[in-house]
Amino acid sequence: MSLPLEAGDSMRIAIPIYPGFAATDAIGPYEILSRLPGAELRFVAVVAGPVAADTGFLSVLAEPLASMPDPDIVMVPGAPNRCLPLGDAVLMEWLRAAHARSTWTTSVCTGSHLLGAAGILKGHRATTHWSDLDALPGFGATPCNERVVFDGKLVTAAGVTAGYDMALALAARIAGEDFAKAVQLALEYDPQPPFDAGSPERAPAHLVALVRRLGLGAAQDLP
Amino acid sequence: MSLPLEAGDSMRIAIPIYPGFAATDAIGPYEILSRLPGAELRFVAVVAGPVAADTGFLSVLAEPLASMPDPDIVMVPGAPNRCLPLGDAVLMEWLRAAHARSTWTTSVCTGSHLLGAAGILKGHRATTHWSDLDALPGFGATPCNERVVFDGKLVTAAGVTAGYDMALALAARIAGEDFAKAVQLALEYDPQPPFDAGSPERAPAHLVALVRRLGLGAAQDLP
Repeated sequence: MSLPLEAGDSMRIAIPIYPGFAATDAIGPYEILSRLPGAELRFVAVVAGPVAADTGFLSVLAEPLASMPDPDIVMVPGAPNRCLPLGDAVLMEWLRAAHARSTWTTSVCTGSHLLGAAGILKGHRATTHWSDLDALPGFGATPCNERVVFDGKLVTAAGVTAGYDMALALAARIAGEDFAKAVQLALEYDPQPPFDAGSPERAPAHLVALVRRLGLGAAQDLP
Repeated sequence: MSLPLEAGDSMRIAIPIYPGFAATDAIGPYEILSRLPGAELRFVAVVAGPVAADTGFLSVLAEPLASMPDPDIVMVPGAPNRCLPLGDAVLMEWLRAAHARSTWTTSVCTGSHLLGAAGILKGHRATTHWSDLDALPGFGATPCNERVVFDGKLVTAAGVTAGYDMALALAARIAGEDFAKAVQLALEYDPQPPFDAGSPERAPAHLVALVRRLGLGAAQDLP
């Protein structure tokens, strides 16, 4: 069986991280995209070295942004709003330059706000964590309450775990459906959540309040 | 609303990692368990410092095993079989000692083989990656083709992404269903895989062959 993308091809993937990033936002797509034929994947950061995630319990090593200035895929993870480096000029400049040459520019959760702050979302459809959809118009984007939004080469995913679904859909576009399905099978991604509480449309209202009270996830900065 | 476990309680969680570990196996449960009230979570390793995951593209910082000898929760991630440190006497001894005092001993994917090699699975029901279920009897365990298996204080999960489901179920036992549902909502864990190919029961047979040919996941060492 042939695949659209075969070993020998090259696929350079950059995941820019920063203090306070949400680990699953980054690791979900990493787990899938790193399996693309010819993949070379780097976690990069404005300040290279160990980068602490939002919980403070996990640090991932990052290389300098300059180590991958021209990725084929840019994948931007989100964070609680208080941790988003929306005003980091060095990161913004790297995002703009990388996006100008990328084949795909992608994000998970509030990672789309970083794309927005870099001016990349203007005039595009995009998504983010359910608690932050109303922030997208501020970046000139049209918010879409969907799990994965493709708009040209821009691919945005909803909150945190939506990165698995986004990356599988993207892997199918890049390397074919059989490849994406094989990765899904290898990762045994046959989700069986013990509860049906993963979206605000179906979770009882008191849970939305509890998410706020406990300061969980991107929603911790809700009013 | 009250929760069974409240802030002020303590919950010490150790995730032992090792070169070649599968990142999602570790990060999935981390993302959920680190939100438990009073959580103190550490990635620990026989050799502290940066520990590279199976792809070679990701390194996570680990502290020494001795930094958390008596966790309330032990959570062991898996790896491709060639990377599993089944013969590491220092790790085995730490696992046995930690299990003797833990409230919960848990694993994802082939992490259960490490519990097995430490003698912890003997006489218990357990699961692992779909491609490796037949290895469990060698550890004296009864293999269960289920996504999450609770047997007393032993909790094992199937391949890779099953750690999210396992950790949510465990969080519910520890801190109550409302807490677990709130974490699920915060992580927007409302999975919508673009394909229905996450289990060998439903994926077409040629995909199982493709997983083997591409050397993906724990299945890469299949004959």
